[in-house]
Amino acid sequence: MIIDSHAHIVMPPESFRYMAELIGGRANPSTQPKIPEASLRKHVEDLVRLMDQVGTDIQFLSPRPYLQMHSIQPARVTELWSRYCNDLIHAAVGMFPDRFRGVAGLPQHRLECPSVRAVAELERCVNELGFVGCLINPDPTEGAEAPPPGLGDPFWYPLYEAMTRLDAPGLIHSAGSCQPRESYTLKFINEESIAVISLLDPASEVFDRFPDLKIIVAHGGGAIPYQMGRFRSWSVRKGEPVSFDEKLRRLYFDTCNYSQDSLELLIKVAGDRNVLFGTEKPGTGSARDPISGRDYDDLKPVIENIAWLGDEARRNIFECNCRRLYTRAFRKDADA
Amino acid sequence: MIIDSHAHIVMPPESFRYMAELIGGRANPSTQPKIPEASLRKHVEDLVRLMDQVGTDIQFLSPRPYLQMHSIQPARVTELWSRYCNDLIHAAVGMFPDRFRGVAGLPQHRLECPSVRAVAELERCVNELGFVGCLINPDPTEGAEAPPPGLGDPFWYPLYEAMTRLDAPGLIHSAGSCQPRESYTLKFINEESIAVISLLDPASEVFDRFPDLKIIVAHGGGAIPYQMGRFRSWSVRKGEPVSFDEKLRRLYFDTCNYSQDSLELLIKVAGDRNVLFGTEKPGTGSARDPISGRDYDDLKPVIENIAWLGDEARRNIFECNCRRLYTRAFRKDADA
Repeated sequence: MIIDSHAHIVMPPESFRYMAELIGGRANPSTQPKIPEASLRKHVEDLVRLMDQVGTDIQFLSPRPYLQMHSIQPARVTELWSRYCNDLIHAAVGMFPDRFRGVAGLPQHRLECPSVRAVAELERCVNELGFVGCLINPDPTEGAEAPPPGLGDPFWYPLYEAMTRLDAPGLIHSAGSCQPRESYTLKFINEESIAVISLLDPASEVFDRFPDLKIIVAHGGGAIPYQMGRFRSWSVRKGEPVSFDEKLRRLYFDTCNYSQDSLELLIKVAGDRNVLFGTEKPGTGSARDPISGRDYDDLKPVIENIAWLGDEARRNIFECNCRRLYTRAFRKDADA
Repeated sequence: MIIDSHAHIVMPPESFRYMAELIGGRANPSTQPKIPEASLRKHVEDLVRLMDQVGTDIQFLSPRPYLQMHSIQPARVTELWSRYCNDLIHAAVGMFPDRFRGVAGLPQHRLECPSVRAVAELERCVNELGFVGCLINPDPTEGAEAPPPGLGDPFWYPLYEAMTRLDAPGLIHSAGSCQPRESYTLKFINEESIAVISLLDPASEVFDRFPDLKIIVAHGGGAIPYQMGRFRSWSVRKGEPVSFDEKLRRLYFDTCNYSQDSLELLIKVAGDRNVLFGTEKPGTGSARDPISGRDYDDLKPVIENIAWLGDEARRNIFECNCRRLYTRAFRKDADA
């Protein structure tokens, strides 16, 4: 089975009208429009066709990250928009319940501790909508001002408490970027690097406090697997009792990194039990690679092409790691 | 010949007293102390011994980046400190002129356009002290506030004008970091990623305006060689006439990335004519790797160990690329 753990909802055009009204009207009027079922169904059927073409059995859908608007004022804009996007995902999953799972976007507004609205929405999504995990944006200011403390800081504990209580893994994935020099796609990567180091810092007690916390770092972990040497050396210089490589095994990474050489490096560094198949298709990688003749985000053949990867390792990446982590995602199978 | 294009001066202890006075006294009194020759000589002799141990013939010395204080107020602190550090490097080079070259740190204070003090100091270093290039910090706020525009923006043209006029290559290397979640070593990497994308952005006219501009990106280019797929796909999606791989050849990268797998990826992606040997030794990588038994920053054997790298490619990386780029660095040989 091929489980694509990292994909985003394709927004029906009606959604953008609501988004414009929310921003323009500053969340007032705030009546949530009906989900545009017919328009959504068309998109979702297209998505299923795309999945069939590339051999994906199940996709995990979360809100389109760069549209999350975590830094827009007032906070209620983000709150209403997150709720709407999650409802949209819920409707999409309902159309093809065997092919999709929902991953929640949280209203992590920059002016608030992540505990209040974010936890409430996570609870709603998991308990009422059957979602299986959530996104975590390490910088809800979207680069507009000084970011909150790193993910290793107690600032984030209320969210971790809710995630572990609900058994909901979190995918590190930032949102937009307010700095012209740092496009959102670039900020994704930089935030992932910051997140990894913050979580694994000797000062971080996150995994002692929350031993059941499950964190996946998107896009192959930003720069970290490539820059391992710097952090290996730092660990040795600081006299840490555990090597940086060993500490890295506390985290999971997805394969949304569109190069075979890079994926080989990732799997070598993180180990095949810590890498989850993910493509973000359709998205950033949906363009034809002139060399392979396939889309960059058609990653199944890329991973199959890694000669040194055994069958078990491949199964781990394509399916088993995801099942181990997102336990909620496959309870249905057991129940059915 | 082995040329290490990326290393920093080891500060004699007397320097820190001046640094403390500059910061505490807000650049007042501002009399520059004498270079502590005896203390500096001891450090420089140690450095030469270290170079002999690992087989380095020549090292390029620049100020220790995390101590550059680009965001400290008032701007005159940074100005005086940069001048002092450059004078220190000049004295060190003078002690072993066959073994060292100077690379200038610039007083890029965050409140100023890079043109004023930075260009004046670059001119002084090149014309009066015989320096061969400079560091460029893309974020002189050191993360404390909104950064300046990216390196592809005309904001930076006054510096590029001076660099090309003086034939002085620039090494992209940020300074400190004011954000607790982003250590300076992590910020180095993130700034390098931002710099690469900003310079190669379709909107950037930098290399059209300054065809002779020479830019080296430190630490193997941050995340970019590992995240090539994202940017390859973006180029295709935007219909750019030139592939991202081809555009990348406009930039140079150094090998201060302490992992053989990563260096293999870098050389594959950037090509052996665009990679310069650099170790930053002594520095971040100066710790014993328990696996190899050598220090992480002892990179000569690591590169020699890459089986598929031919003799010419190795010579390019160890020596020839550096000679081609830093033309000022080897004029002496010709004159002598």
